[in-house]
Amino acid sequence: MVVWFTGIPSAGKTTLSQRVHAELLAAGCNVRLLDGDLLRHQVSKDLGFSKADRDENIRRIAAVAGELADTGVVVLVAAIAPYRAVRDEVRHKLKNFTEVYVNAPLAVCEARDVKGLYHKARLGEVKGFTGVDDPYEPPLRPEVECRTDLETIDESARKVIDYLRRRLPDTLG
Amino acid sequence: MVVWFTGIPSAGKTTLSQRVHAELLAAGCNVRLLDGDLLRHQVSKDLGFSKADRDENIRRIAAVAGELADTGVVVLVAAIAPYRAVRDEVRHKLKNFTEVYVNAPLAVCEARDVKGLYHKARLGEVKGFTGVDDPYEPPLRPEVECRTDLETIDESARKVIDYLRRRLPDTLG
Repeated sequence: MVVWFTGIPSAGKTTLSQRVHAELLAAGCNVRLLDGDLLRHQVSKDLGFSKADRDENIRRIAAVAGELADTGVVVLVAAIAPYRAVRDEVRHKLKNFTEVYVNAPLAVCEARDVKGLYHKARLGEVKGFTGVDDPYEPPLRPEVECRTDLETIDESARKVIDYLRRRLPDTLG
Repeated sequence: MVVWFTGIPSAGKTTLSQRVHAELLAAGCNVRLLDGDLLRHQVSKDLGFSKADRDENIRRIAAVAGELADTGVVVLVAAIAPYRAVRDEVRHKLKNFTEVYVNAPLAVCEARDVKGLYHKARLGEVKGFTGVDDPYEPPLRPEVECRTDLETIDESARKVIDYLRRRLPDTLG
């Protein structure tokens, strides 16, 4: 099972995935959290932020996630993955792919600006920033959608975990 | 634990790693075999066969192996990894790295020529082929060395498994 947290910067992907990770660990589940930023450094150092490069980065992350998932681990991935076609490609390549759309309005995410990158993007100091001058294609039928501007982190995490419990009753019953 | 089978083409890395994989599976061990050729396609499509590209390929394979090993799986990797420095870098980055030197004289490997690539390299149709016109730096202190020209596959596999049993008595007791 691969659970992919997708959304624009500062939507709450990292926060939510870390919370879900901690709760699943506490429940005794064999779970791994893959960090999109770390993987970019480990397997995608050559890649930039063009569409082709972003898509290839997602394919590589998916390859790592797939290897892990094949061992029976629940794999959580937090990575923007802005393009729908490559998310769907990954969905078909992996078994039990779950798309969690971590959603909040752009204005809310920009106000949060966790890494200060929206600010830099508006100043033109960062180019090709998702949500500002690079597109984000929202999921059409995500398995779970969390509105992180309207829900508490507890509520969002609960939605994801409740979904996973229904999908994986033997693992998370 | 990551067990890396290194050696020149046709030395027997794939054959030996597959045998060890099958035996560990039969013993009930949680084990995964990573295929160097497949990983090149999955996470290293952009890379060629220069020293820098080969080294980066090995780093990426090691990142995947490391993620897997962190889940408690025994990871077997069959990949040439011709340069000593990057093998040592990987050794220090991963916990419980085991280097298996799959060794046979060049003339023997060339006579086997499993994929017909030595022939093409001698004709100049393949460039930068390890053992012909690209270097292979043998391990100086591998944990296990298998002389695949002098040992049967059973003997070689036994050496690897006996070593792993000593290193991982709880897993492979």
